[in-house]
Parts: sequence; C-alpha cells; structure tokens
Amino acid sequence: MAEELLSARPKWSWVNLATDVVSPSALAAFLAELGDIPHDTAPNTVAAKSRDFFWYSPILKERLADRVGDVVVTPRSEADVLAVARLCAKHRLPLTARGAGTGNYGQAVPLHGGVVLDMIGMTEIGPVVDGAVRVGPGAKLKDIDKQTRPAGWELRMFPSTYRTATIGGFVAGGSGGVGSINYSGLAERGSILGARVVTLEAEPRVIELRGYAAHCVQHAYGTNGIITELEMPLAPAQPWTEIAVAFGDFMELARFCLAVGRADGIFKKLITAVEWPIPRYFGTLKASLAEGSALGLFMIGTASLVAFDEMVAAFGGDLVYKASEADVAASGAVPIYEYTWNHTTLQLLKREKSVTYLQAAFPDLAAVEAMQREFGAEVSQHLEFTRANGEVVVRALPIVWYTTAERLNEIIAIHEARDCPVFNPHTYLIEDGGMKVTDAAQLAFKRVADPLGLLNPGKMRGWTP
Amino acid sequence: MAEELLSARPKWSWVNLATDVVSPSALAAFLAELGDIPHDTAPNTVAAKSRDFFWYSPILKERLADRVGDVVVTPRSEADVLAVARLCAKHRLPLTARGAGTGNYGQAVPLHGGVVLDMIGMTEIGPVVDGAVRVGPGAKLKDIDKQTRPAGWELRMFPSTYRTATIGGFVAGGSGGVGSINYSGLAERGSILGARVVTLEAEPRVIELRGYAAHCVQHAYGTNGIITELEMPLAPAQPWTEIAVAFGDFMELARFCLAVGRADGIFKKLITAVEWPIPRYFGTLKASLAEGSALGLFMIGTASLVAFDEMVAAFGGDLVYKASEADVAASGAVPIYEYTWNHTTLQLLKREKSVTYLQAAFPDLAAVEAMQREFGAEVSQHLEFTRANGEVVVRALPIVWYTTAERLNEIIAIHEARDCPVFNPHTYLIEDGGMKVTDAAQLAFKRVADPLGLLNPGKMRGWTP
Repeated sequence: MAEELLSARPKWSWVNLATDVVSPSALAAFLAELGDIPHDTAPNTVAAKSRDFFWYSPILKERLADRVGDVVVTPRSEADVLAVARLCAKHRLPLTARGAGTGNYGQAVPLHGGVVLDMIGMTEIGPVVDGAVRVGPGAKLKDIDKQTRPAGWELRMFPSTYRTATIGGFVAGGSGGVGSINYSGLAERGSILGARVVTLEAEPRVIELRGYAAHCVQHAYGTNGIITELEMPLAPAQPWTEIAVAFGDFMELARFCLAVGRADGIFKKLITAVEWPIPRYFGTLKASLAEGSALGLFMIGTASLVAFDEMVAAFGGDLVYKASEADVAASGAVPIYEYTWNHTTLQLLKREKSVTYLQAAFPDLAAVEAMQREFGAEVSQHLEFTRANGEVVVRALPIVWYTTAERLNEIIAIHEARDCPVFNPHTYLIEDGGMKVTDAAQLAFKRVADPLGLLNPGKMRGWTP
Repeated sequence: MAEELLSARPKWSWVNLATDVVSPSALAAFLAELGDIPHDTAPNTVAAKSRDFFWYSPILKERLADRVGDVVVTPRSEADVLAVARLCAKHRLPLTARGAGTGNYGQAVPLHGGVVLDMIGMTEIGPVVDGAVRVGPGAKLKDIDKQTRPAGWELRMFPSTYRTATIGGFVAGGSGGVGSINYSGLAERGSILGARVVTLEAEPRVIELRGYAAHCVQHAYGTNGIITELEMPLAPAQPWTEIAVAFGDFMELARFCLAVGRADGIFKKLITAVEWPIPRYFGTLKASLAEGSALGLFMIGTASLVAFDEMVAAFGGDLVYKASEADVAASGAVPIYEYTWNHTTLQLLKREKSVTYLQAAFPDLAAVEAMQREFGAEVSQHLEFTRANGEVVVRALPIVWYTTAERLNEIIAIHEARDCPVFNPHTYLIEDGGMKVTDAAQLAFKRVADPLGLLNPGKMRGWTP
C-alpha cells in the first residue's frame, strides 16, 4: 500500500533527506481534487510557509534551510481538514501542519515536501465555560486573552511569541513560558483539557481526546494527528505590572529571583534573570543600566507590588522599570516578556550573528555559579524560574557565543556532566530536544492517527512503520 | 504614673491571675465618661463576650473559664475607638479587643478584667482597588467575599470559622487555613497590605502601617494596638468544587494529597486528610463511608476537575462527595471546610468530651507514619497541606484522645523529639503557641502603641514595662 513511501522513509540521519521528494503526478492529482479549499503553490509563498524560527540555531539553519513543501493549504474548517487528510492518504503526500511558525526547532518545516497545512484560518474562540475555553488551532494567543479577559480569565501560560503565536502551534511544539512560574509547563496534568484530532487515513476520523489523553498530541510537532480544536484551562485574570530590577551582581539577582519565586504571598507570572552583556541588547530597557549590570525581568500582580518593592529593597536591587501591562499595551511599548524566554536570544540575534543558545535545567543556584565560572564570557547566563512538581526550579536559556558545532556539543556535554540536563535546541527530532526517549503515548497514538507515517515525517525518531 | 497597675502585672504563671482586678471606682469613672458609645455591663453579656473557643483545650478550659471583663464596649467608628482608648489610659483599665470570638487560644479572653472592645460594629467593606480591599476589623470573612466576588476577587485564605469569624480577629490571632495551599499563611510577606492601628495612650494616635510593617499586629492578639482597618490582598476569584475522596489506607491518601498539592496544573484551595475514626463524626459525609476509611477533603477549581478525577483514579481513591460551592450555598449544606482545620476537632467535640488536639508540622510523610505507629488509636491523624517558602508542606491538627495533661505534654515531647514541631494550642501565651520566642517587631511596636501595657495584658510573655 504505502510501500514506495515507506521505503523512502527518512533514515534519521542529517543527510539524504533530499532523496525524499513528492512525485509530481501525486501532487497534481491532489491539487485536482482539492476543490475550493484555499491553497497556494507559488514558490515564494510555499517557501515562506515552510519555515519557522529554526535559524536561531546555526546547526538547524544549515540543515533545514532548503527544506520546503510543495503546496500550502489553508483549511477553513474541520471539514476541510478531513478532506485534505483524505487526499493526502489517497495520494501518499506528507502533511505538515503549522501555526504562525514561531517555533525554534523546525517543527513547522516539511522535511519531505508535500502539503503544508496552514491552520491560521481556524481561529474560532468559544465562550469561557467553567474556566476553560475551546479554541481553533489557529487562534492567536493574544486574541484568546483578549476575548477571555472581559469574562475574568486569561491563558495560564504563553511563550514570548505571544503576540503572533497560535495556540495550536504552542501546544504542538511548546513547553511553557510566561506563567510557568505558577502552572509549570504544558506537559503538566491539567494544562490541556481536551483536543479534537483528525487522523490521516483513507477515511480520516475525528478523535476527541479528553483530559490527560489529550497530552499525547502535546509537543508531538503534529506527527500524530491534526489538531482541529483545543480545550484550554484558563487562570483567573488579574492586572500585571511589568518590572525590571538591576543588580550589580548576577548571583545576587539569581538569589532574589528564587526568593520571589518562593514568596507564596506575591503574585507573579514571570521571573527572568540575565547577566551582562545580555541587557546591552535590550532596546530602551538598557538606557538606565550601568555597564556590567545584571537585570531581572518580572511580571508581578499589581496587588503584590508593595511586598515586591520591599523585597527589592531588602536585596539591594535597583528598580529601573515599572509599567502596568495596560499602560504598556496603550503606549505600544515592547512588552517585557519580549526580552525573556527565547526572545532574549532574539534580541541578541538582531545584532550579533555569532550567538546561539541552549536550554538547560539547573539543579540549584550553585550549579549556575559553577557554569558561570566554567565558561566565563563564552556563555552568558539567562535564567527562567518556573514551577515543577510543586517547587520553584531554575531553568535556563543561556546565550552561547558560538564558534563551532564541536565546541557547542562540548558545552552541552560539560553541562550534563555537572547534572545540568540540556534540552538540545539544535535538533528537529522530538526526542532529542528534551525527552531523550520516545513518549510511548505519543507513539501509540501515532499508530492510531497516522498509520501511513505521513504526518510531519522525519521528526519522531521512535516511529517505524 | 501606672505604678499601681504595673505592680499588678501578671507574673506569667498559671496561678495568681485572680489577684488582678479592676478597681470599681476606675470602672465607674470610665463608664461615666463613655458618653453615647454603646456598652453593656450586664454580667451575662460580659461573660459571653469574654469567651472564645478556648474550650477545645481541656487545659485552657480549666485555666480561662472564670476570666471575665467588666464591660463590653462596641465602637461604631475609629473615633469611638480613640475615645475608649483615651479613657482606658486615663483610668488604667485593661482593654481586650475581640472579633467573633472564634479563636481557640484565649485570644479574646480578658485575663485581668476591664474593657472588652467588641469590634463587631465596624464592618465597613470598601471597593476592590488593585486587587485589594480595605475593611473594618468587624467585617465577617464571608461578607467580604460576598462583596468582592462580583468584582472577580475573593479572600486568599480563611479559617474554618469563615461563616462567623471577623477579619480583625483572624489577622490578630489566626495563621492561615483554607487557601494556604496557595498563599501560605498570614505571616507570609504580601498577605497583609496595611493596617490602621489605634494606640492606647493618654492621647491615643492612629498609626498607618504599610506593607510588611503591618505584620507586627498579626498574631499579636491585640496586645500591641487596636486594629481599626485592614487592607487585605485578594485572589482572583474562581468557582470551587467541594470534594471528598475515600481511601482504604490513610498513608495512601496522604501520598495522594501531597501529589495533588504538588500538581501545579490543578487549582486547589483545600487539601485535608483525616484517618478513621475521625470521619465517623462527619455528619452526612460519613454516610457512604466504609468502616475504617480514610477521608480526603478538597476544594478544587472547577476547571481542574477532569485532571483531579484522573488523579483520584490513578491513586485508587473513591470519590464519595462532589458539589459545587454554589450548590452547597444554595442547598444550605455544611460547606466542606467545616470538616477541616479546627472544625475537624469541633465535629468530634460535639459528641466526644475526651478529645482535644495538637498543631504540628511534619517534615515529611514518613514522620506522619512514624507518629501513627507510635500512638496508634490514642492520636488520630489529621493533616492539612499548605505551602511554605514555595513548597508544599505537611501541617497537622491531630486529634488526641485525652487522658491527662501529663500525657498530653508527653505526646507533644515525643513529636518534638522526632522533628515534628508542635505549636501548642494549650496555652494563651502568644509565644508558647508557636513562635517560642517573642517577635521583636511585635514587642517593639507594643512599646510604641501600648506603653502602659493595658492591651490584652497577660498574653505576651516578652512584655515587661
């Protein structure tokens, strides 16, 4: 049945991907049957929609630059998705679903051509019911908040690409971000309430996943089903204030951040610490900073400002920026979260071509200090404090002043040797990014939802037909 | 000046308190100058208003039963409070402020007679501003929520006496309760935003305490100022569902509770575990319970019910009760929190005269198991899970099947020898209940606000004139 395609299955190496090309006749047949479902084969459009922000990684940049699909299809509804899935099964075309393409790991890059399914048209946002909202995968995160906030609710967490990212792309590839200091990551039980998923089969089905079962499509890059609706739990909304605090010493800032994270009486949504020279690249935020400063970036509940300010004073920090989220929005200023998480890296990449980054977990602040000593200026520390298993933990996206792939791998190895696991952002394979092993539930669901192995092929190492 | 009073100062012993009596002439002069400020000297009224729920403790019951004030004064305003404070200073009368008298440690019991200042008339509740509310000390906790919830906010934490307790009494004597699994206790930085406090001096002043400074009147039993207004931070409100889950094994329930506490993706407000026979005393809740069952009591955010139910199933619990907070209120059923915290003890005291309780902190669940083995049926385990310093911790109010004071002290000593600190609920001295040492800020503020030592005299061990 799918023999010819399966024989062309990627061999999970960095090379010979280019041997997998879609047959022109299959593509032509697909297009002929697509009917009125919006699509585009213009090379520029297809190339643009075959990319994401993988270029943060010099390694992915080299490996993925030439990967493009053959056609961009933009479904308007679940019915369109079902129709496209049926045609892909019929003509044995790979299908790679994408949101806004704001991910960094090639999630949205079709390794083997075929259909790029642009979910940007499915933007429905339902009413808030029992603190949850059902949304189309193409709904932008900021638009969800805009619609739910008048009802008193907001998204629990979002990536720094909040203003452009879609909920489908975030769930399919993301892990957490702003808000994870309260609710941990997307993988946490309760962070996704349900998902509707279209299978890729001769007769595609819609599968409703409820509760923890819905997590099997989370961080699966669209390899095991096409998400057509998500039910997301919300948090009761509250006004947030964006704050930056400067410290002379980075480790003192880090201790302050940990204390704020552990201060159960203080509402917070974001706790970020960066060492010099990172804040030198922070637009207007750098104006009032002394050379060499470490900078903490925070979103604090407005009701907790008095307590927070007292902590700043107790730790000897210097408050250099404070603005309510509402004022930031009204003024058009850059929201503070666009200096955090992977936007930190972006701020540097705008001016420095030689930087890249890692994603790491530090067991404690002593490990941060050890890595600081180990690498000096070669690695600029960038910490993100989140919650995991009920505790505040230290995550990091350190900036690496890049020389060679070999040295980058050495830096990773040194981290791991010191009990600082690295979630490698320089791979497009799901497993290699963080989990190291294939998620059994993800794989099992792929056998159900994608028996032909056509969904975003080449991204899940554990898949064999 | 105050020599005669100071010479009569209590000697911090359980005995000779009865020697401290208010002179009839001073009282008469006070009453003559009180004007139209409402007051009552009827012995029954004064006796009733000189009590709180200290009788949970057989030791306090014996020690405090005969302690009464001389007059109950019910101020209508801060101006009334200032006038009463001035008269107490002038006539050297002790003043003991009280809320609803729902505390358990004799906080509201005047050890040396004098004025009982009943704050129940000062019930003002302001609008929600920036997630906080200014309230009179006599405002009932339930009334605050009733007024703030339409604006989308609710109290962060409350004791199990929520339906009758006042905010002033809670702040002056309480430590935490329902909600502490999110926000820790009242002592936590950020849990109180401000307080207005009237001093007891010849010319009483109003002192505005802001931020952490306001904490010096928290858990001070009204010994260092008369609270006339509080600014309390709120939490964004959300619908809660009340749930009871039965387990065959208490330690398995305890592990489940800890896991729920650490589940960052699940909204919770209450996590309580009690072992058999405690649930036998739980009214309608006991109906569906098998003999010997351990019972978990929870308030879970409605948006998290799916995830919670999945955890119950994973741990092998048996869901025996589930009702939305709104349905409970509408039906007039007993809210689930009235089976938790110190209401657990009350449920038993309604039918068993020989029980009392402790308050303890367990370093981990192994310690719970050790105490369970140590005491068997003599101590029935009752755990309350809260947050402290950013982590989920195990607090306890174990039921003690009381024999003698000596044995009770032995039980306390055994706990402490095994690293389970006991916050002794069988003392009316602030320090002996939990802190062990006098809070320096509390004492320093008492020197400012109560130089004559007339505020609730006899409760702060560290006070010397």
